[in-house]
This record gives sequence, structure tokens and C-alpha cells, in this order.
Amino acid sequence: MSLNSLNALFLHELRDLYSAEHQLLKALPQMAQAATHTELKQAFNDHLEETRNQVSRLDRIFSLLGEHASGEHCNAMEGLIEEGKGLIEKEGNPDVKDAALIAAAQRVEHYEIAGYGTAHTFAKLLDHDGIAELLQETLDEEGDANKTLNKIATGGLFGEGINEEALAV
Amino acid sequence: MSLNSLNALFLHELRDLYSAEHQLLKALPQMAQAATHTELKQAFNDHLEETRNQVSRLDRIFSLLGEHASGEHCNAMEGLIEEGKGLIEKEGNPDVKDAALIAAAQRVEHYEIAGYGTAHTFAKLLDHDGIAELLQETLDEEGDANKTLNKIATGGLFGEGINEEALAV
Repeated sequence: MSLNSLNALFLHELRDLYSAEHQLLKALPQMAQAATHTELKQAFNDHLEETRNQVSRLDRIFSLLGEHASGEHCNAMEGLIEEGKGLIEKEGNPDVKDAALIAAAQRVEHYEIAGYGTAHTFAKLLDHDGIAELLQETLDEEGDANKTLNKIATGGLFGEGINEEALAV
Repeated sequence: MSLNSLNALFLHELRDLYSAEHQLLKALPQMAQAATHTELKQAFNDHLEETRNQVSRLDRIFSLLGEHASGEHCNAMEGLIEEGKGLIEKEGNPDVKDAALIAAAQRVEHYEIAGYGTAHTFAKLLDHDGIAELLQETLDEEGDANKTLNKIATGGLFGEGINEEALAV
């Protein structure tokens, strides 16, 4: 696909996110299984459910635009997930590995925040106000998911936090 | 390397960032060359210079820790850069391609913000206060680089912004 218009670039961005979310649907159950702390398992499972909704939202957006959802492969998400898998396979202490899983997951959230932020900006410029609202909903969820991971790592929400536990190993 | 302590995970994170920055040193000149708008070329070239300083900072950190810098390959940055290269190679209008390059570069900045954010948190927990300060300097630069890209895209700093120009194509 040529990048001959902002609309073409908008579709490219949406397809990149669609591929990213589909890859994440397969990776999140592995992250949840690899996590030791109950609250981290729960956060990954909650985000899996959220990711399913985010895919549905993208399906709705493509339907509103009368366009196909597929056609791009998100190389960046592939690399992010490979990194997470590398951590899952490493030997180590469960507390330290959970801290590592959080670090990997926060990189994923930041990727999505950047991607949805761009897509939201383009949707508004292209006067797709309803679509911009749908993208903002996902953007808010990704921001909240990142904050939840932060709290689990640094404490406050669930006692001292996984980082402190990893420090005490 | 086993993840048996927070210190081991801290070194893993630093080596991941070291690999990421080195990959970026090779990619940024290609991004600058592919950009059409002077201010975007300049932003990529400025960030190349900043990235060189960030690598020097990491070298200094490894030296302070008495550890080797190499040993990890950052798969996520490889994927992010592949995505950028894919955009560079696409046919299209120069304004739209510049908007696409900004979108790709902002994903890179967000990756680094997540990575340095985690490394900074670990450095403070491990009582490496001087190292935490060095990491905070880089973190601030990455945040500023992201804001600069935002301004170039959405306007304010340089007139109407590249996104508006891409819309008018």
C-alpha cells in the first residue's frame, strides 16, 4: 500500500495495531502462566480480556471505514513478545522474574500508547470523531494497564511491591 | 544469565538498552536521510547526537558497576527499526511519509522511556544513586525528544505541523 494520503497512513497505523493486538492475545496467557504473584497473574488475565475488547473495537472501526483489517504484520510487537518469551525461559528467582515480566509488559503498553496516540490524532484530523472516541477508550485502558503494572511493581496497591521483594532475594 | 537477583535483572535491562541504543545509532541517519522536512531531518540528527551521549553514559555506568556492556540483543528495537525501514521503503507522498516517520520514531521513544524508567527505578532501589541520576538525564532527553516530534507533527513549533500538511495532500 502506498502512503499517498493521511487516510492511507491512518489505515496502515490501524492495521499495525490490529496485528499487534492479535499477537498480544497469544502472548498474554503465557505471561499470566509464567507470573508467580497472584496480582500479576490477575493483571495479565484482566488485560487479556481488555485486549479482546480492543480487538472488537478495531473490528468495529474497520467496519465503519468499510476497510479490511488485515494486511500488515507488526514487527515491533513481534520483537517485544520475543523479548518477553526470552525472559519467561530464563532461570531465576520467582520474584525477580515477576519484576522482569512487568518490565517487559510495560514496554508493550508504551508501544500501544504511542500507536493508539498517533491513530487517535489522525482520526480527529480526518473528522472521524466516533472512531477517535473508540481509539481514546483503548488509549485510556492502555494507560491504566501501565499504571496498574507500576503499582504492582512499586507497591502501594498490594503492600510493598514486587520490586522490593525482588531486592530482598 | 540467570535472573537470581534484582542486580542481575538491572544488568539485563541496561544491556538491553545498550543494544537498543547501538541499533538506533545505525538507524537514525537513515531516518534523517528519508525525511523531507528540514525540521524533521534536524530532529533526527539532533537525536543521533543525543544517542551518542546516551551510549557514553551507559559505558560510564557499566564502568562504575565493573561489568561488561555487551551480551544482550534487543529484539524489540530490532522490530521497531524494521518497521521504520518498511516505511522508508514505501512509495508515497513526502508529507505523508514524514508523518509516518514521526509515528515510527515516537514508538521508539516510548520504548526507551519504558526501558530507562524501569532501569532508573531499579538503580534507586539498589542504592546506585549516581547511576540513577545518569539514567534520569537520559530519561528526560527521551521525553523531550518525544515532545519535539509531537510538536513537529501537530504544529505550534513550526507553523501548521506535518500532520496538517499530510491531510492537505
